[in-house]
Amino acid sequence: LKIFKIGGSIIEDDTELNQFLEVFAQIPSPKILIHGGGKMASELSKQLNLEVKMQDGRRITDADTLKVTVMTYAGWINKNIVAKLSALNINSIGLTGADGNLILAHKRMHATIDYGFVGDVDAVNSQLLQQLLSLDLLPVIAPITHDVNGQLLNTNADTIATEVAIAMAKSDSVELFYLFDLPGLMGNLEDLNSLISTIKTNEIEALEQANIISAGMIPKVHNACQAIKKGVQKITFTNVEGLAKIINGEVAGTQITL
Amino acid sequence: LKIFKIGGSIIEDDTELNQFLEVFAQIPSPKILIHGGGKMASELSKQLNLEVKMQDGRRITDADTLKVTVMTYAGWINKNIVAKLSALNINSIGLTGADGNLILAHKRMHATIDYGFVGDVDAVNSQLLQQLLSLDLLPVIAPITHDVNGQLLNTNADTIATEVAIAMAKSDSVELFYLFDLPGLMGNLEDLNSLISTIKTNEIEALEQANIISAGMIPKVHNACQAIKKGVQKITFTNVEGLAKIINGEVAGTQITL
Repeated sequence: LKIFKIGGSIIEDDTELNQFLEVFAQIPSPKILIHGGGKMASELSKQLNLEVKMQDGRRITDADTLKVTVMTYAGWINKNIVAKLSALNINSIGLTGADGNLILAHKRMHATIDYGFVGDVDAVNSQLLQQLLSLDLLPVIAPITHDVNGQLLNTNADTIATEVAIAMAKSDSVELFYLFDLPGLMGNLEDLNSLISTIKTNEIEALEQANIISAGMIPKVHNACQAIKKGVQKITFTNVEGLAKIINGEVAGTQITL
Repeated sequence: LKIFKIGGSIIEDDTELNQFLEVFAQIPSPKILIHGGGKMASELSKQLNLEVKMQDGRRITDADTLKVTVMTYAGWINKNIVAKLSALNINSIGLTGADGNLILAHKRMHATIDYGFVGDVDAVNSQLLQQLLSLDLLPVIAPITHDVNGQLLNTNADTIATEVAIAMAKSDSVELFYLFDLPGLMGNLEDLNSLISTIKTNEIEALEQANIISAGMIPKVHNACQAIKKGVQKITFTNVEGLAKIINGEVAGTQITL
């Protein structure tokens, strides 16, 4: 089973999204796609005169902002991807964590910061994903969860990808791809030749301390280490070009291994 | 199989929605829920300074308006209902016509009016609904369709309810409920005692010509007649109070019969 997380400009730019989906369509099933929200939620918030508040890369989500994130992530972005996949002859089904009780979460409690309607994941219903895959439906998951008490929650898409991969790894051999705007993890962001091709989980801390892994990447890399430690077989960080190379049997991106 | 279409204030007012969902939760499976968009799409359009254009009760849907309808119908309204059903111990799955290629439509062509991204239904994938029902997932359908070429389309929710009911009636005994703000079809809108309790499809035209069926109800009633003629067993127009009576074995609402 291959699980893909897309974010950043792949979602924000329709041309890049189309390029990704064409490469993605060529990858044999079974596969699962998880998407973030890019800048669209922030843009809609601004158009609606809502203040955009971020804390350590996480969106502070009041009731109005929750509505905006559900509308953009579960509404426009999710259904646009599903419709585009259909045009590529891929039968997909768009889901949030509320659908079929796919992802149970609880509202984040923090001693000093009120994150609002932000959900930390408690459980993934991997059985539902298996059932949908067995119906030849490709799950497309938006980063919205729920608490089973009727409350929708906003959850980081990298976290969802990680949790879904870990849950599926209990019964499947899982490869997880984080697709973003760079060829992979870079030793030096100024130098495109500084791609780190493989890295072991126990080498990560040293790279962080040497400031080789940039601040924005640290949560992504920590998520990846968690996934590897909890049974995900292989994790690759790359961009659309890198993914195209990989499906052609070439080497690309950064692989994280145990 | 019971199919329910909700619209109007049931969707616009959270208290009414909760009241409906509590009654709905008591009705034995299998069941399918189809929702409209109420005024939320118009309100969001206004907040975003988009002009709201209607033609014969149908929304003229330019590209920006399509985005608004997908965000509100498939995003907020759909996922809010799914989360609320989960709190009532009902495992539901929110869908548009794009998901699993559920509802294939084509962009409406009209000699004089450009409706924009409005879809007329060509086919309903009843097999997918049967598969989801057999997984004990209650389908919750938003009034968005697609053309299988990557284009999402805005489709009237009454039409979707009718088409879904007709498609399911090929293999199932189907009862269709249109839930709205009135106890049923009224002989006189000023008089709540003027409820028409049963009406045959061949009596409809006479009621229309006598102006007994009001203009806003005519498309709903025509949809219902279509459904009955194409195999749907029973159609009821009522409100939440009427539905509560019906599940208690009392008589309520208007029934349309062949």
